[in-house]
Amino acid sequence: MGAPRRTPIANPLFEYLLRHGDDRLVLGHRLSEWCGHGPILEEDIAMANVALDLIGHASTLLALAGEVEGQGRNEDALAYFRDGTAYRNALLVEQPNGDFAVTMVRQFLFDAYSVLLWDQLSRCAHEQLAAIATKSLKEDQYHLRHSSEWVVRLGDGTDESHARTQQALDAVWRFTAELFDHDAVDEAVAAQGVVVDHAAMRSLWDTMVNDVLHRATLTRPADGGMRRGGRDGRHTESLGHMLATMQSVARAHPGATW
Amino acid sequence: MGAPRRTPIANPLFEYLLRHGDDRLVLGHRLSEWCGHGPILEEDIAMANVALDLIGHASTLLALAGEVEGQGRNEDALAYFRDGTAYRNALLVEQPNGDFAVTMVRQFLFDAYSVLLWDQLSRCAHEQLAAIATKSLKEDQYHLRHSSEWVVRLGDGTDESHARTQQALDAVWRFTAELFDHDAVDEAVAAQGVVVDHAAMRSLWDTMVNDVLHRATLTRPADGGMRRGGRDGRHTESLGHMLATMQSVARAHPGATW
Repeated sequence: MGAPRRTPIANPLFEYLLRHGDDRLVLGHRLSEWCGHGPILEEDIAMANVALDLIGHASTLLALAGEVEGQGRNEDALAYFRDGTAYRNALLVEQPNGDFAVTMVRQFLFDAYSVLLWDQLSRCAHEQLAAIATKSLKEDQYHLRHSSEWVVRLGDGTDESHARTQQALDAVWRFTAELFDHDAVDEAVAAQGVVVDHAAMRSLWDTMVNDVLHRATLTRPADGGMRRGGRDGRHTESLGHMLATMQSVARAHPGATW
Repeated sequence: MGAPRRTPIANPLFEYLLRHGDDRLVLGHRLSEWCGHGPILEEDIAMANVALDLIGHASTLLALAGEVEGQGRNEDALAYFRDGTAYRNALLVEQPNGDFAVTMVRQFLFDAYSVLLWDQLSRCAHEQLAAIATKSLKEDQYHLRHSSEWVVRLGDGTDESHARTQQALDAVWRFTAELFDHDAVDEAVAAQGVVVDHAAMRSLWDTMVNDVLHRATLTRPADGGMRRGGRDGRHTESLGHMLATMQSVARAHPGATW
């Protein structure tokens, strides 16, 4: 795994855009796996809408990443022709959908993080990235409202829904710390004007999450055995299965020229 | 199969709303099967958007059908707890996606029909249905532009894309006649003010389709061996496979109460 360690030095902004583009591409595709499988039509439609927004954000971030890389790869080349080890998403977003509670808890924890990230990036010195952040922030604020309402509804619902939601929270919690890691890539892009205050983000995220968990009558798990690796391309095996499905058609028709 | 023949007499408007709601529910789910499988991100997003619109239209039509039926079934009960023989969609929309050409040709032939149907229904005497038609018409006009542009692009593209698109057209053509059938249900709802001129629709559809096929350098297949049955619940087996997937989660969690 020398590549991940070398890449940040080679082109940190490219690496940075991949990380945040991949977060949204992977989570968007996870949500799209619910297409036609939702428990109710309204929610099926709502989840697919969120999936579309996320894939849209991913598409703009990966398109910019391609420009920044300057090797002629566009968003499709980056989405469909990279293997798992070249993906830079956090482990949280690649976790399997599980039941509806797992999907919604995973979504809420990411939405809260995403809103805070966009808010900071909307003020960064990189004009194109700031513009993407400003546009995406509006949509993710809506997603956060939707997912947090569901977490409260499920957590403060029936005994079964409460138990399932606490179980979901306990299961995905260990993947949340990675979202706030600050490494050489963050240092390097900060030097280029893409400054994000990770400590401030983390404390705001704690406040938002604690408030929703309280309303949901859920217990915040203790930090422990926190998992990391996605930002460096060390993923859980479930990503490989997802990419195999997601990339099959594009790889079967390279360039989709016919 | 006595039921289908009895139903029109029992409640023709309910039957009528099921037919058009099911067309959109089934086609929307067929399109959603492309989620995460599109050849390019932009088209993956575009197809999912069309799928969402169609499922949204289906949801409003089935909700109204449930009211009209007056037996306490809402759109979810109608979508997830009817078996294939109770589905009233035309055979065209349940046909498997095949390759991208089949999906786009199927979409174009349906979009042209749907725009014409909504246009007539937007002027019908049933206020709620007219309102649904007016809103849906706007979205389907956009879908028609998108699918007809693709048919032209594929038909008038490379030799391979032309061959595949002609093949797709030849394959699905036999399912188009059913869309314009006029039976006892249509007669009965016309008596209730839901008047649609099928002959006028058919001739406008012919004009629209011929124009696009001409620009796509495609040959309009001869009518022959036209297939029918969907409106009476006699479906091709592919519908059963689709419903098994689509209904599995809802049936596993009846009422999704947890």
